[in-house]
Amino acid sequence: MEVSRIIELLMHGNQLKRTARTGWGQRGVPLPENVAAHSYGVAYVALILAQLSERELDLAAVLAMAILHDLPEGTTTDIPPAVWRYLPKGAKAAAEWQVMEQIAGDTPLEPRVMGWWGELRQNESAEAQLVHDADKLDQYLQALVYEQQTGNRQLAEFWQRPYRFHFPEAQAIYDEIERRRTTAPRV
Amino acid sequence: MEVSRIIELLMHGNQLKRTARTGWGQRGVPLPENVAAHSYGVAYVALILAQLSERELDLAAVLAMAILHDLPEGTTTDIPPAVWRYLPKGAKAAAEWQVMEQIAGDTPLEPRVMGWWGELRQNESAEAQLVHDADKLDQYLQALVYEQQTGNRQLAEFWQRPYRFHFPEAQAIYDEIERRRTTAPRV
Amino acid sequence: MEVSRIIELLMHGNQLKRTARTGWGQRGVPLPENVAAHSYGVAYVALILAQLSERELDLAAVLAMAILHDLPEGTTTDIPPAVWRYLPKGAKAAAEWQVMEQIAGDTPLEPRVMGWWGELRQNESAEAQLVHDADKLDQYLQALVYEQQTGNRQLAEFWQRPYRFHFPEAQAIYDEIERRRTTAPRV
Amino acid sequence: MEVSRIIELLMHGNQLKRTARTGWGQRGVPLPENVAAHSYGVAYVALILAQLSERELDLAAVLAMAILHDLPEGTTTDIPPAVWRYLPKGAKAAAEWQVMEQIAGDTPLEPRVMGWWGELRQNESAEAQLVHDADKLDQYLQALVYEQQTGNRQLAEFWQRPYRFHFPEAQAIYDEIERRRTTAPRV
Amino acid sequence: MEVSRIIELLMHGNQLKRTARTGWGQRGVPLPENVAAHSYGVAYVALILAQLSERELDLAAVLAMAILHDLPEGTTTDIPPAVWRYLPKGAKAAAEWQVMEQIAGDTPLEPRVMGWWGELRQNESAEAQLVHDADKLDQYLQALVYEQQTGNRQLAEFWQRPYRFHFPEAQAIYDEIERRRTTAPRV
Amino acid sequence: MEVSRIIELLMHGNQLKRTARTGWGQRGVPLPENVAAHSYGVAYVALILAQLSERELDLAAVLAMAILHDLPEGTTTDIPPAVWRYLPKGAKAAAEWQVMEQIAGDTPLEPRVMGWWGELRQNESAEAQLVHDADKLDQYLQALVYEQQTGNRQLAEFWQRPYRFHFPEAQAIYDEIERRRTTAPRV
Repeated sequence: MEVSRIIELLMHGNQLKRTARTGWGQRGVPLPENVAAHSYGVAYVALILAQLSERELDLAAVLAMAILHDLPEGTTTDIPPAVWRYLPKGAKAAAEWQVMEQIAGDTPLEPRVMGWWGELRQNESAEAQLVHDADKLDQYLQALVYEQQTGNRQLAEFWQRPYRFHFPEAQAIYDEIERRRTTAPRV
Repeated sequence: MEVSRIIELLMHGNQLKRTARTGWGQRGVPLPENVAAHSYGVAYVALILAQLSERELDLAAVLAMAILHDLPEGTTTDIPPAVWRYLPKGAKAAAEWQVMEQIAGDTPLEPRVMGWWGELRQNESAEAQLVHDADKLDQYLQALVYEQQTGNRQLAEFWQRPYRFHFPEAQAIYDEIERRRTTAPRV
Repeated sequence: MEVSRIIELLMHGNQLKRTARTGWGQRGVPLPENVAAHSYGVAYVALILAQLSERELDLAAVLAMAILHDLPEGTTTDIPPAVWRYLPKGAKAAAEWQVMEQIAGDTPLEPRVMGWWGELRQNESAEAQLVHDADKLDQYLQALVYEQQTGNRQLAEFWQRPYRFHFPEAQAIYDEIERRRTTAPRV
Repeated sequence: MEVSRIIELLMHGNQLKRTARTGWGQRGVPLPENVAAHSYGVAYVALILAQLSERELDLAAVLAMAILHDLPEGTTTDIPPAVWRYLPKGAKAAAEWQVMEQIAGDTPLEPRVMGWWGELRQNESAEAQLVHDADKLDQYLQALVYEQQTGNRQLAEFWQRPYRFHFPEAQAIYDEIERRRTTAPRV
Repeated sequence: MEVSRIIELLMHGNQLKRTARTGWGQRGVPLPENVAAHSYGVAYVALILAQLSERELDLAAVLAMAILHDLPEGTTTDIPPAVWRYLPKGAKAAAEWQVMEQIAGDTPLEPRVMGWWGELRQNESAEAQLVHDADKLDQYLQALVYEQQTGNRQLAEFWQRPYRFHFPEAQAIYDEIERRRTTAPRV
Repeated sequence: MEVSRIIELLMHGNQLKRTARTGWGQRGVPLPENVAAHSYGVAYVALILAQLSERELDLAAVLAMAILHDLPEGTTTDIPPAVWRYLPKGAKAAAEWQVMEQIAGDTPLEPRVMGWWGELRQNESAEAQLVHDADKLDQYLQALVYEQQTGNRQLAEFWQRPYRFHFPEAQAIYDEIERRRTTAPRV
């Protein structure tokens, strides 16, 4: 183990603390959460979801994928979907793959990290699908909190994009979040 | 599963995004990281450490404990050590235990969550010890980053408290972080 | 007078500028006021109240107690009420007393400072009661301002806790603040 | 007492929480203190100084003047000295006097508030001079803290303007602050 | 060309990045825009307006005046209108003129810069009038954005001051902005 | 002129006020400037440079290009160079071109706006080259200011990338900025 290389690897995770979630900032949320805080949210939601589900799940893989799922953004930043639309198809996946290899390459962790990354991108295993559900749930929870705490009307856009959850428990949670949003009292 | 109760449970994790790490703020770090971002750091460092160690580890338990390790602070806030000194011995552990029971109680997750919490507090399993090492490593990494990025001289205090790492890999990483700190060039 | 000790004493007051008012931050107020700004508000409100009241009051004691009333929070931080509930009865008062002694001890100011602190905690003198009224009024004024300026719906919680003012002038001011809150026009 | 007018009066004090200290911001201090927090600092320092001094002082007047000393800035903002230089001599004092009358006028507090304001501006009483010393001490304490916590080199300008303290205790404190500044270790 | 003098000149523009727009901050907008960002907005709006207008315009003069129109505020800060009311008539124009001469004096740019400044202050040329229209449009656009993104009710004051636009295109844009403001859906 | 379309166009410029300059944030500058403030800096520097140069220049074109030079970033955000390296050659220019067409398309301004954009991208005219020089000078000025005001050591990276200025006046200014950086006194 070459320690210097490991510290570099650790710094890539630390960098997420300085990487803003772009969608909130573009809509004027003051001091929006960073990618590290969001990734925490995803890992926490995934941990809860995995306990609630009746399916047999590899919890270590679920949590590892949740922790890694936005790791390249320390390098790429959280580029908004509007941009990728202007780039060649597949450019995002290819760029992120290269960044992940640059991050984990030449370390003893490369095989496992890239394995989790591939599984997450493929989104076929139950574990990967649960992480994607958790990713969305953390976003909707946060949108609800921002709406109630900042009075921002432009966040309404976030609720217009339909998303089909893989896990019925995630869907039920989303439905309740959405219900709370529309019935919350006003000041 | 009563969905409302689950959303309450999820909101406790979300609350960490609004809970500042007190030690940085008390020393004037502008916009210091919150507990969610720190907890992400701990989980990420723990994931790396677990891969590097030659010991056989239950990775799911490691990551779950890392994700839960500061969860009560959404309720208690990150009370500085100086305060607990003025309170009866054991008051901190007792209060946090009650908060955790309030968070997870009456949900299907209670047994596992409280199990992980107890294991972490006892700090006897290799998994719990690795999480404690990761907790410290994230703090030292962050202190180094803040020192290099803000010129804050009062963070020097953080390096004076000795901590004995359980894992030799963690100790080696700390030694290198500490070496970088003292040899970094000045502007 | 040993100057070094006095500077230490002064720094305890200065520290309130880096100590956030926890309740606002927990409910998502961006960049919430710190304890120094709040303490200013309390001293200012107390100064006004003391002029309005027909009771004979020791103004110096009123203002000194207002200035000192949250001084320990530079050390303890502004621990939310939810936490003290989990601690032994009297733990808060005991801890704050010790912090105040640590702050003022071994200085020529100790007797007077601790005298004011004791008077404030006992809350029996008219002066102490006026400071408590001012403490609450500053909080309600601030809650109104935050609600009107941030659209935060979660601050509604602050208005649900009944508080009985000692001074009729304070009660009348509160009633008007509360009236403004419910009749303010919306954008 | 017309309550509406009193609330307006209270809001002028509350406004200081939204009024930045200009000198720090112009030199790039991130999120610099506001005038309320500074005024708290002045009142706290004045309270300490008054205890330390052997002179007989009207403590109520000292604290009242400290609390009021920057009150007009809620309306005028903290206009930097460089501006007043371009305005007719006496313009600052005249403008602030009018603002104070607008703030306190038509309230039962007008005589006393304007009395304190006049005493402070005249700066002949020991009480007024002590408040001016406290104003400066809070500024130097804050400059020291910002220098140690932000690495800002441009704050050096603050130490070049000579100020002659009225109270020997204030001078002794300044000398020690200045000594600490020049001997503090670097990271 | 003496380079040191030119860098000083450049720093005056750079200083606008550290100069807050006072009106927003006084009404509690968190992290309000600075004068540099506002001046960008004015220049951008002026560029668009100049293209839309059928009048023949000196575009270089329009853009130069837009870029310079708040330059003295790096020195004076953005003093609110309420203050100038308390100062002798003409004091604002006189002070700003002196600041501009201090900024541009003794540089080869003095004649042109002061020429643009004089033209802008006189507000008789079509170019100057267009810059004033752009100044107002940027303010109203920003007020609309802040209202929609922060739920701030106190910004309503901004819409009560009538302003008569010089260019019909500017008036038409204002009318539409105002219409959007009153018909925007609520969360 | 369809007013709704024009307001959309104006909002694209306004959006730069909510678009952070990524490089500063990635290196931990607290509350780094946004693209609007930077674009103001570029326009201001370009205005000065154009006056200093002996070459005959179309000032309107210089300023228009400076104002437009980062306009697409309201949509794309300020994607760091490290990302484009992972994307197909030419992807950046192609994406930005499409964004600009989306911004200005179907408005009477399209021909001129796209003309300036094309001229800027081609970077062959003296006017376009001056804007590029101004872009770099604003960045170096800002790096110097941040280094002096925050003590950030990681900004040293910015000074290692050589850039060859087109205008000798710009080069002379850079040389002096660089000299100041290395000779500035420390606190």
